[in-house]
Amino acid sequence: MSNLTVGLIGLGAMGAGIARTLRSRGYHVHVCDVRPEAAQAFAAEGGTAWATPAEVAQAAPVVVSVVVNAQQTEAVLFGEHGAAAGMTAGSTFIMCSTVDPNWSIALEAKLNAQGVHYIDAPISGGAAKAANGQMTVMSSATPAAYAAAGAVLDAMAGKVYRLGDKAGAGSKVKIINQLLAGVHIAVAAEAMALGLREGVDADALYEVITHSAGNSWMFENRMAHVLAADYTPLSAVDIFVKDLGLVLDTARATKFPLPLAATAHQMFMQASTAGHGREDDSAVIKIFPGITLPQPKA
Amino acid sequence: MSNLTVGLIGLGAMGAGIARTLRSRGYHVHVCDVRPEAAQAFAAEGGTAWATPAEVAQAAPVVVSVVVNAQQTEAVLFGEHGAAAGMTAGSTFIMCSTVDPNWSIALEAKLNAQGVHYIDAPISGGAAKAANGQMTVMSSATPAAYAAAGAVLDAMAGKVYRLGDKAGAGSKVKIINQLLAGVHIAVAAEAMALGLREGVDADALYEVITHSAGNSWMFENRMAHVLAADYTPLSAVDIFVKDLGLVLDTARATKFPLPLAATAHQMFMQASTAGHGREDDSAVIKIFPGITLPQPKA
Repeated sequence: MSNLTVGLIGLGAMGAGIARTLRSRGYHVHVCDVRPEAAQAFAAEGGTAWATPAEVAQAAPVVVSVVVNAQQTEAVLFGEHGAAAGMTAGSTFIMCSTVDPNWSIALEAKLNAQGVHYIDAPISGGAAKAANGQMTVMSSATPAAYAAAGAVLDAMAGKVYRLGDKAGAGSKVKIINQLLAGVHIAVAAEAMALGLREGVDADALYEVITHSAGNSWMFENRMAHVLAADYTPLSAVDIFVKDLGLVLDTARATKFPLPLAATAHQMFMQASTAGHGREDDSAVIKIFPGITLPQPKA
Repeated sequence: MSNLTVGLIGLGAMGAGIARTLRSRGYHVHVCDVRPEAAQAFAAEGGTAWATPAEVAQAAPVVVSVVVNAQQTEAVLFGEHGAAAGMTAGSTFIMCSTVDPNWSIALEAKLNAQGVHYIDAPISGGAAKAANGQMTVMSSATPAAYAAAGAVLDAMAGKVYRLGDKAGAGSKVKIINQLLAGVHIAVAAEAMALGLREGVDADALYEVITHSAGNSWMFENRMAHVLAADYTPLSAVDIFVKDLGLVLDTARATKFPLPLAATAHQMFMQASTAGHGREDDSAVIKIFPGITLPQPKA
């Protein structure tokens, strides 16, 4: 197997983009997905499709896992025909999901006990950046793991942060980013809702805020969806139900209070249970009563 | 009186900067302040110092008020030797404080009844931008008021938003900006506190977040103060106790819920009552227990 052989499990929006990026950078990519047709479609343009994670792990010394959460990662590794069965000593597992950092720390110990390297490597940036190689990786790992698979990491992304010499720091920084992102989306919605309640012109409000100290990356990005009345999910309300839940679980483990994250989590849950869970996360604005949201422009 | 005659009441950090900007742009500036020595010091380099708002109003057709809040503005206008006594029909009062929009709307009606124009003109950007003419004004006013004093407004600032044809919209947009700014400072503190609790390197966290979707103008600006352990007040904790209070008062008038603003307001009040009210607003991070904040670098 050459250095340019890699496995990738999970061809969702992010995984498919990463697989294409690795292929475009010269890697032979072995893939599988719970939807076999997704793997076949990828391999039709280059690469090899397999039916199970175990086969991918047998074919490649480095396996990148791009699934939704810790539960799916457990299934990828230790479920029927899981990757762990196919991984040999010296191979590397790169974990790209957003997870509880303590779970990631435990997974490193479990894989290291088998002689398998582990990189705690949550990703950020969205599907478009994944596909053009511009996403960000927030990673931490042992020096041995970086030596074995750091080149794959660098080939996946535009920016790879190396945040520590063992698992945990990568996932911690990722969930702290999600804490900020989630609260910023919720407060952007709260601010825009107050403006609508008070009869302020929504477009003018957007113009002023995006040029003022009240701006955030999320206000600028997500309130454009509200102004356009376009709730097509780029990232859904239920993602923040999950991610702010992870943030709160992590802090609860050391009894640490997070008043704003807890409040925003309630707002996303309210939006989800009201029927908006699969809409764009900016649909959290729909929890506010007594306002008329912008309508689609003619 | 020439078109380049203007009055300015209140030579605090913002007012002194605006007065200097107007002077540098060719205006003869008539000033007064509750501290007579501040007015004398300004006039020593050009302009005229007066003892009372009434005298300033008699000397200039346009009066800019740059005081802390609505209560002080009431005193400037209607207190002993107040500006209202010196203002004649056709003159203009420019109100730059952050106030309850409904109070500003009522003030416009009261002054218009005396034939005096009114511009609802809260300002943003801090003392440095005020002094070099780069601050922002969020204004609304009648066309007649803009015709009478729009040139002064433009001379005061780098950017003047004209948000509506009567008082209210300016103050509404300003308090919505303060809602966002206040929540963003509080959640920046919450996120940094969680990172410290979890043993994440604070400088690395700052580097990642300021390049990620979790960033905000306030995170980038204020967490630099926390990393430097410098709580010298550029804007104090108590300013957000006041401003988020105004936001909540405004929304309460129409029974509109603001869950995140309410939570952040509690956090700033907790910081204030714990003794940090006059420190930089980033000192809201001091409410979090069980962490060790960065210390001043040697």
